[in-house]
Amino acid sequence: MSHIKLRCPKCGISRPADMSAEPCLGCGSPLDVAYTAHDGDGLTMPSPVHGPTLDVTLGEGDTPSIQLRTLYARLPKLYAKLEFLNPTGSFKDRGTATMLSVAAEHGVTELVEDSSGNAGASVSAYAARAGIKSHIFVPAGAPEAKLRQIEAYGTEAQPIEGPREAVTEAAIAYAKQHGLVYASHMLSPYFAEGTKAFAYEVAQQFSGSMPGQVVFPVGNGSLLIGAYNGFRELKASGQIENIPRLHAVQSRNVMPLVAAFNGEEWEPESATKTVAGGISIAAPSRQWQILDILRSTGGSAVAVEESRILRVQKSLAEEEGIFAEPTSAVAFAGLEILIDQGVIQESDTVLVPVTGFGLKDEPPGLPLEEK
Amino acid sequence: MSHIKLRCPKCGISRPADMSAEPCLGCGSPLDVAYTAHDGDGLTMPSPVHGPTLDVTLGEGDTPSIQLRTLYARLPKLYAKLEFLNPTGSFKDRGTATMLSVAAEHGVTELVEDSSGNAGASVSAYAARAGIKSHIFVPAGAPEAKLRQIEAYGTEAQPIEGPREAVTEAAIAYAKQHGLVYASHMLSPYFAEGTKAFAYEVAQQFSGSMPGQVVFPVGNGSLLIGAYNGFRELKASGQIENIPRLHAVQSRNVMPLVAAFNGEEWEPESATKTVAGGISIAAPSRQWQILDILRSTGGSAVAVEESRILRVQKSLAEEEGIFAEPTSAVAFAGLEILIDQGVIQESDTVLVPVTGFGLKDEPPGLPLEEK
Repeated sequence: MSHIKLRCPKCGISRPADMSAEPCLGCGSPLDVAYTAHDGDGLTMPSPVHGPTLDVTLGEGDTPSIQLRTLYARLPKLYAKLEFLNPTGSFKDRGTATMLSVAAEHGVTELVEDSSGNAGASVSAYAARAGIKSHIFVPAGAPEAKLRQIEAYGTEAQPIEGPREAVTEAAIAYAKQHGLVYASHMLSPYFAEGTKAFAYEVAQQFSGSMPGQVVFPVGNGSLLIGAYNGFRELKASGQIENIPRLHAVQSRNVMPLVAAFNGEEWEPESATKTVAGGISIAAPSRQWQILDILRSTGGSAVAVEESRILRVQKSLAEEEGIFAEPTSAVAFAGLEILIDQGVIQESDTVLVPVTGFGLKDEPPGLPLEEK
Repeated sequence: MSHIKLRCPKCGISRPADMSAEPCLGCGSPLDVAYTAHDGDGLTMPSPVHGPTLDVTLGEGDTPSIQLRTLYARLPKLYAKLEFLNPTGSFKDRGTATMLSVAAEHGVTELVEDSSGNAGASVSAYAARAGIKSHIFVPAGAPEAKLRQIEAYGTEAQPIEGPREAVTEAAIAYAKQHGLVYASHMLSPYFAEGTKAFAYEVAQQFSGSMPGQVVFPVGNGSLLIGAYNGFRELKASGQIENIPRLHAVQSRNVMPLVAAFNGEEWEPESATKTVAGGISIAAPSRQWQILDILRSTGGSAVAVEESRILRVQKSLAEEEGIFAEPTSAVAFAGLEILIDQGVIQESDTVLVPVTGFGLKDEPPGLPLEEK
């Protein structure tokens, strides 16, 4: 019998663990993993796989956290966790390793995923590692480097025209038509579960001097949600005293969460192209969950201009030696606003994940009109 | 007084530690770091900086070692150490962190380096982190992604036409002309010293079951030399029983070491273009030292065809989920030959570093005529 079930974080209904990405039949929310039996010591993260370690791994996790002394000098305790130093160059590998390990346990031999690029490359790599055939659906405008990476792992990337949602629809339709598993990084409970490791590492790396504030670039929110779930477990087991305040930053061009959090009007139809392709999600499937986390931790949600994203990406590389993709720079751009607003103060210990490698996207620099 | 001096590994002459990249005045060999005082416990690596940790760091090192089960199934104990999961995407960051930390201690504010790409990106990033201005000279034909990365960190890459040696000459001339430090990853004793950490990590990760054979792609040999020096220290302090056999692999198109090791005729003039740009070094400045290491550890040197490099790069990505640059695939291509020759056998524990990320170079695939 399995040691886990899948539970709706919204209405609490649960069902036996399987590989379906079907959301809650009651309310439509994506499901989470819940442990029916688990004898942890509080410091070791529980895992949805049955073995002592993940079977499908490329050595993900244990990314370094380094102090930033120059970028925002008025913030003396600012740290970056270099999540792009995961095996495919983004934090997505944490979720993928867990999702693919569970898939391998279930005997999956072929799967479908849709992604703006990073999750696609990640699933493609881990599927290759597991000997599982993968089909990755991507937006037609995804960066060339990301498409090339997906294809490097032997997967054919299927470009889909239209809005981001059309890519998801095409992936689901293909999976249904061919009777394949839809291994969605947005909907899979196992993917969300894997990203929890972020919190456990932060607790270990910072021990006595935990960051009080963590600032995320947010699209689907899988890292923010995973981190929150991890911090919550660590607090429940007495490993940490407080859950940090978690902040979400989005591009002004695609800001459903920021608008909802601040009670502003915003329609998915008003989304426009952003340099932060990794978080260009007009209707996040876990929106209510993200808002709930921001509110319950005392966090906030801010939106940033495109020009600010590119300027901060450049500064991060030129002043700190960190080459991040624009999506990752979004969080640092938002941090600047949070400092200006006084939400984050000089005495705070602040952590920002650098979610994806700059090599995966366009080179940094201001658009011509800003130069 | 400094706790280090610079010593010639060939003739033993030493001089006080400085930032000059001048080789030994006696024999012309690049120098190594030698410790005049050092109270280590054997497990902690001695360091040329005075503080307890490197001052200029981006969180390099502690890269994962993962088991490969599919690529060469006849070799059940094959491991890859993912050196591309260093902050700029290559193992070079180990050497650069040490070299730039020493440079910062010496009050250096501006420096010059020449590189086929990876070392340039690495020095550019760490110089940015240290607030040091850098000038990077690169071969005119270096991959676009590598040039873009160098420039991302705020450095102007200076492309130089002609053979690789012309790039070095241009860098040295520029440094002399402007009175700047020539921070060469090929000649700096501090760079070589930093790569030693590879060996210390291997000893820690494998403890009781140390690899008996390590296979490197070799151009200037900085990782192989550093690893050897580390293993030698670990053996001297009783932390490991034996130094592994170290093997060097080169492209057939640029194979000075392989030829010299095997007593074959080869002239630098016969070098032709290779997909393994990172090891396209026709006259390695530490050649005698590399040959000495190969011989003294019972290692070997083999050369591989271009088509084999590309085929193995593809297999590594498609079968193991590891997206390496062609230069890194060279070692795995050579391993295949060493297995065929019986030099490496089924019972051996074998380790291969994956030195650089595939995102930095052209996508994998066979040249048209091979398809």
